Amino acid sequence: HDLSKIWVNSPHSLLVYGKYDEISLWPLPQKFQSSAVAFKLSPASFQIVHAKQSSAGPSCGLLENAFRRYELHSPLFTFEPVLCYKRFCSLCVDELSIDEPSAVLKAANVWGALRGLETFSQLVYEDYYGVNKINKTDISDFPRFAHRGILLDSSRHFLPLKVILANLVTMAMNKFNVFHWHIVDDQSFPYMSRTFPELSQKGAYHPFTHVYTPSDVKMVIEFARMRGIRVIPEFDTPGHTESWGNGIKDLLTPCYSGSSPSGTFGPVNPILNSSYDFMTQFFKEISTVFPDAYIHLGGDEVDFRCWESNPDIQKFMAQQGFGTDYSKLESFYIQRLLDIVAATKKGYMVWQEVFDNGVKLKDDTVVEVWMGNKMEEELQNVTRAGFTTILSAPWYLDYISYGQDWQHYYKVEPLSFPGTDAQKKLVIGGEACLWGEYVDATNLTPRLWPRASAVAERLWSDKSVTDVGNAYNRLVQHRCRMVK
Amino acid sequence: HDLSKIWVNSPHSLLVYGKYDEISLWPLPQKFQSSAVAFKLSPASFQIVHAKQSSAGPSCGLLENAFRRYELHSPLFTFEPVLCYKRFCSLCVDELSIDEPSAVLKAANVWGALRGLETFSQLVYEDYYGVNKINKTDISDFPRFAHRGILLDSSRHFLPLKVILANLVTMAMNKFNVFHWHIVDDQSFPYMSRTFPELSQKGAYHPFTHVYTPSDVKMVIEFARMRGIRVIPEFDTPGHTESWGNGIKDLLTPCYSGSSPSGTFGPVNPILNSSYDFMTQFFKEISTVFPDAYIHLGGDEVDFRCWESNPDIQKFMAQQGFGTDYSKLESFYIQRLLDIVAATKKGYMVWQEVFDNGVKLKDDTVVEVWMGNKMEEELQNVTRAGFTTILSAPWYLDYISYGQDWQHYYKVEPLSFPGTDAQKKLVIGGEACLWGEYVDATNLTPRLWPRASAVAERLWSDKSVTDVGNAYNRLVQHRCRMVK
Repeated sequence: HDLSKIWVNSPHSLLVYGKYDEISLWPLPQKFQSSAVAFKLSPASFQIVHAKQSSAGPSCGLLENAFRRYELHSPLFTFEPVLCYKRFCSLCVDELSIDEPSAVLKAANVWGALRGLETFSQLVYEDYYGVNKINKTDISDFPRFAHRGILLDSSRHFLPLKVILANLVTMAMNKFNVFHWHIVDDQSFPYMSRTFPELSQKGAYHPFTHVYTPSDVKMVIEFARMRGIRVIPEFDTPGHTESWGNGIKDLLTPCYSGSSPSGTFGPVNPILNSSYDFMTQFFKEISTVFPDAYIHLGGDEVDFRCWESNPDIQKFMAQQGFGTDYSKLESFYIQRLLDIVAATKKGYMVWQEVFDNGVKLKDDTVVEVWMGNKMEEELQNVTRAGFTTILSAPWYLDYISYGQDWQHYYKVEPLSFPGTDAQKKLVIGGEACLWGEYVDATNLTPRLWPRASAVAERLWSDKSVTDVGNAYNRLVQHRCRMVK
Repeated sequence: HDLSKIWVNSPHSLLVYGKYDEISLWPLPQKFQSSAVAFKLSPASFQIVHAKQSSAGPSCGLLENAFRRYELHSPLFTFEPVLCYKRFCSLCVDELSIDEPSAVLKAANVWGALRGLETFSQLVYEDYYGVNKINKTDISDFPRFAHRGILLDSSRHFLPLKVILANLVTMAMNKFNVFHWHIVDDQSFPYMSRTFPELSQKGAYHPFTHVYTPSDVKMVIEFARMRGIRVIPEFDTPGHTESWGNGIKDLLTPCYSGSSPSGTFGPVNPILNSSYDFMTQFFKEISTVFPDAYIHLGGDEVDFRCWESNPDIQKFMAQQGFGTDYSKLESFYIQRLLDIVAATKKGYMVWQEVFDNGVKLKDDTVVEVWMGNKMEEELQNVTRAGFTTILSAPWYLDYISYGQDWQHYYKVEPLSFPGTDAQKKLVIGGEACLWGEYVDATNLTPRLWPRASAVAERLWSDKSVTDVGNAYNRLVQHRCRMVK
């Protein structure tokens, strides 16, 4: 039995390449049927081709690029611009049928085709004699949740481009589809802005070596897109902005010690028009640099002490009738920011505090639940209010402990909170977050993987896929695949 | 001010290169005096040379090799055999004086010279204009403890040679001087024996790719020696030997389920002469392959259940009058093993259980205290009995937790146990242990470093060096140096 060709029909089908005696697919497909009948795959003659009836053809650079990756096992960091661009689908269906004389992958669009190609590649195995083989298999697959993300933090420690790209490769192997790029924070501002170059000049760890240039950012976005991954940047305000203040005069609130400025600065100054003028220009740029329909606006952990210390802020509070409730001031700021960003035609994501504080949100806002203490209550509240939500609270992978903690992440059931079916549908997925306090280029990959793979399967596979022993056996194989 | 030459006088002096505005020496020298007077160092003209009065000269390959490393910043893995070989000293003194027209490093022997060269290299810094500089400095240095070790475990996961060599480079940067190579265990037997090739053929994870050949072992030993590091191999028996049983028939005790063998095996079978014949031949080989004066014989965590189940063992116990005290059987085995190894003229190290069980030990035995629960009591007991001891209990670096746990390792005071001065002197050092259950080539380096650096300074620097804030500042710089 030989298999030497894969017919690709996309948006309606694709031919593709498996593992039999130990099925080690990760994440586990929705429906899977395999038999002992094995076909040989010769790397020399193996081809992935467009099916005649496919609406995509050789002009679709994204698929051409993916074919080459899966055919040739080319080095990780090939990067080629492509012409075809389509909006991401949320729940891509794909069907994979491996049989003689060739395998067929049907997918509703290119994104489903990419997932199917990955599944196909995981089915190929070497037999005892070193021959590549794949077994007769039928798969019908789709993700349980539409939003399956990884958060990386490039501010606490700068992450070189190659670390980010390597992570995108691993994400694709796990069928993650969102790279939540927590690109700036208190510690540093590595994003190089065209409009405000002084932000990174003065706010990055180093103005030349520790920055993401416009072409770096483009490369990340395009490299991700080639693998079916959205890039959602986060520019967190009004807190977590210390590094912004180095480049932009008067952006941050001067803190006071008694009756005079202490020389330190707090959150974005919410009482100056100049702050909003800046944000308008800044997010206008961001909205064009990042093609995704969403921007993450942060809004978490605002420390009120500096605002409380500042007499001008106190005066403004009194004028607005906020009393001493500084969360009202925070909401005042966020409200104006959301309006600014909405004017760029982008949707926005925010951390849960923004919802908790009662800020008026657009209907399509995605609220990210990150606090572990009352996670189920929060999911209930957010969805009861009708907002779409994603869950990251149980998946803060920067927290480490001895042993196999992947099991804890694996056992989470995102929909276990009490609520109606309509509420459950509003939970569109989750994110594994690797905050950067103790993570840099030297340890990111082994700290994140394969732990994040547990989250990947939880977000992709059916709710019933909960057998830790079975998962362990597959994960061991999947880890080897990733290490290779 | 220019400095272009280093005169080396060894065994009585060496010329050597520092950092001033932020002194980031690690570990901190015993005596250190620095001034603001800075000399330029030109990489093009800078030389390290033997002093006229030095008893070592160009024929000492070890120093020649070290000179090249520190002069040229050559790649990590240059490896050249050398001719000169000297026994390791335990407490090498070195003195480093950096002044015009050249710096002088005096050392009692080549090992002290190596430490001094490392110190010199840490003193070199780049000024604002990118010029290499070193300040006028006087250092007089020696280690507080003679035995400063790192344990790596190449059995739970196989460690490729390059990972071991990279670790030796980092060890030298931290002035560690003992590589405790826990080379085999239950999980696998990667050591390729000339006498018993079947041990690795059948006991390694892979008989060709996951083994240490005789030339691999030689390379590790020589690479380590060039950096002043002893290699102490551990062949742990009678427990932790499952992988030995694959290659050597009848070496392990057959476990019984009721009245018949269960098919599983326990510790080395202590009642057969063939076991001791094997050990005699095996350790004869080991004693020639590893030049160090010591071999680690293990002796920890012997599980008695299999012995208890075996009727032949039960009969032997009765004959010997051991009753049901299986620790007596364990001691019976260990006693014979120690005699076998003593006949090879090697000293031995053992885990604490061997001492605890009252086995008769040679006077020069080194007892390794690893159990954290009664560490001080154990140190007291071992030293009261007059045995030399090393401490690893507080430094099991395979246990991880969130945050800066290096501080816990740093705060340990090895001599805090109650005892006489004579007892304290018997504590010759300690070891940071990185057991391999969750460690392999993908994460070893970032998991071990810089955490092990905390142990390095505790074992090298004066007892009074306990300021965590000061250590933090230096460790940040030292980490950058290691990452480079």
